[in-house]
Amino acid sequence: MQNFEFQNPTRIVFGQGTVPSLDKLVPADARVLILYGGQSAERAGTLAEVRAALGPRVRSEFGGIEANPTFETLMRAVALVRAERLDFLLAVGGGSVIDGTKFVAAAAPYSGDAWAILESFGSVVQEALPLAAVLTLPATGSEMNPSAVVTRQTTHTKAFFASPKVYPQFSILDPTKTYTLPARQLANGVVDAFVHVMEQYLTYPAAALVQDRFAEGLLQTLIEIGPKVVNGPADYDSRATLMWSATMALNGLIATGVPQDWATHLVGHELTALHGLDHGCTLAVVLPPMLRLRRDNKRAKLLQFAERVWQLRDGTDDDRIEQAIQRTQDFFESLGVRTRLSGYGLGPEVIAPLVEALTAHGMTRLGEHGDVTPDQARLVYEAAL
Amino acid sequence: MQNFEFQNPTRIVFGQGTVPSLDKLVPADARVLILYGGQSAERAGTLAEVRAALGPRVRSEFGGIEANPTFETLMRAVALVRAERLDFLLAVGGGSVIDGTKFVAAAAPYSGDAWAILESFGSVVQEALPLAAVLTLPATGSEMNPSAVVTRQTTHTKAFFASPKVYPQFSILDPTKTYTLPARQLANGVVDAFVHVMEQYLTYPAAALVQDRFAEGLLQTLIEIGPKVVNGPADYDSRATLMWSATMALNGLIATGVPQDWATHLVGHELTALHGLDHGCTLAVVLPPMLRLRRDNKRAKLLQFAERVWQLRDGTDDDRIEQAIQRTQDFFESLGVRTRLSGYGLGPEVIAPLVEALTAHGMTRLGEHGDVTPDQARLVYEAAL
Repeated sequence: MQNFEFQNPTRIVFGQGTVPSLDKLVPADARVLILYGGQSAERAGTLAEVRAALGPRVRSEFGGIEANPTFETLMRAVALVRAERLDFLLAVGGGSVIDGTKFVAAAAPYSGDAWAILESFGSVVQEALPLAAVLTLPATGSEMNPSAVVTRQTTHTKAFFASPKVYPQFSILDPTKTYTLPARQLANGVVDAFVHVMEQYLTYPAAALVQDRFAEGLLQTLIEIGPKVVNGPADYDSRATLMWSATMALNGLIATGVPQDWATHLVGHELTALHGLDHGCTLAVVLPPMLRLRRDNKRAKLLQFAERVWQLRDGTDDDRIEQAIQRTQDFFESLGVRTRLSGYGLGPEVIAPLVEALTAHGMTRLGEHGDVTPDQARLVYEAAL
Repeated sequence: MQNFEFQNPTRIVFGQGTVPSLDKLVPADARVLILYGGQSAERAGTLAEVRAALGPRVRSEFGGIEANPTFETLMRAVALVRAERLDFLLAVGGGSVIDGTKFVAAAAPYSGDAWAILESFGSVVQEALPLAAVLTLPATGSEMNPSAVVTRQTTHTKAFFASPKVYPQFSILDPTKTYTLPARQLANGVVDAFVHVMEQYLTYPAAALVQDRFAEGLLQTLIEIGPKVVNGPADYDSRATLMWSATMALNGLIATGVPQDWATHLVGHELTALHGLDHGCTLAVVLPPMLRLRRDNKRAKLLQFAERVWQLRDGTDDDRIEQAIQRTQDFFESLGVRTRLSGYGLGPEVIAPLVEALTAHGMTRLGEHGDVTPDQARLVYEAAL
């Protein structure tokens, strides 16, 4: 096991009917900004519930945070925070809204050009406004971690930052808030959580037995409940399990003491930036060919994955590895998430610009060994056609 | 899944060579009390390393905290803290030292009779001194949780308290610090961690799929490494895995959203209080007959335990349940931990006083259904003869 530090201060308030606890959790004298995305939080009644729980506190609202939140939009929220001297940020939404709120929290008190927060990966962040979340879309784990992805619209750049200052103080996870989500968003959430686990698990053995078991448990759970969540009627237990799985998939716990990959995410980001694919879809497209390409480096963990997650015990090592990857791909497809670029109307002509964008963004040595170059990414995109 | 709140603020600093990070973690102007147990921390060089890391900080030391730390001893530490106006407590040891330190942290600023902290199960605790730990004995999970067990010597009472104020600020977990431990303590640690998991897992199904998988992963891991840790030469990877397993077994994570039992612990406590058995030994004695006695109430989870943890798939349900319990008992024995009262020189004559003590301590409705009465406990003790 590698040496590590782990600390996660976010308080989780989990379960049906927990939104009213906002009144207890938000300071009574807070000047609150509620941040949200489109109209679904209003339509589903969540915003009304949040407003009621906040009672007489001073509050303002900022809607319209996009999926893949943009720097440009978020800077308007920063201006509002400053103008109205707001001092507590409450995200109501999924990963995009929470990520965006983290950026606003760090940017509002920052005196220079706030893009530096992203260029420095967060290292310039000295302070941030307190923030919290009411989660409505389980997927990214942002509700219990210190990181965020923000897109600069003008340059099609998906940028990342992390800082211990932007852990949510608390996050309210009420599984019933997912009941009105469309199947597509639920499916993306399952895939996102699944691939988050894979990025931290499917590397090389590091004598991290507990972390491996936890990761495998999350993968097995997502395989078990995924089809039920996406294709079945709204069901409390499955939604609750998805919500907790997605949080556990990226709260730092299974990352302790192990190498991490993240090449699938970074190679996938360009598909969102250039072609607007949902984040979850990019992962479903990239992961299978990425694993096939790197099967030699990942051999031991692929065999463990095949045995423990997919219960594959027959055939040669190579057979079992290929079967495990194919089953993973089939699993994504069974959720209605297409795993080929052609499924999104993209052909070979998109590949050269994607590879150029990776290079331009400095994504030239990815993966747990730093050996996934733009040339390797090209092979991945080609295999995904 | 039941509604729950989860927050665990303790920072974990894990790995070989991490003790010197004390200098970064303890405030420079802290007036530190180092608390420890017997002479092993001195002999192994850990205390010297701690002193060196603390450098010129004002510090005092308090040794002699017993296994099953006593109120009487700890109140002497409280007096020292008050007399020397110490303001930061650093436990160097295992669960007993850390538990004791938590009590000192809560008792030092408490103005009334400090026994009230235990009588109220911690609810009177309004403030506590900051505390931290250097863990030398993996077992209890105290390094990352808010609870402690303290014994009143005069009345043979093992009492419990918990308060969010006594989470360690940080805990340093260096697996090499376990190299000098005797096999007996390592074996007790494996059993303790195993039974901690069982108390939170082996109840009844609560649609908590992630928590179940995590619990099963911990049990499988302990079964895998236990014999190596206890019977083999000191080996970094196994010790690191034991350390992280024991921490994860009782840091609140696998308790989220599920019912809990704890009858084995409470029925076992009287064996320590009246006959001085090691805590781990009491668990090894009590768990197997406790599971057999309550097999009907615990049926669904026992079958899941048999299949997922012990890979038992043949025979009737009752066969698999009995086999799973027997394998658990054999596992404890394989570590050198005896699972019968006779192994500790105790015969039928001890039972009536044990049952009386349970009653006297108010332990009359234990377990996840509150149906483990002193009469049931008598059956457990009898079956353990």
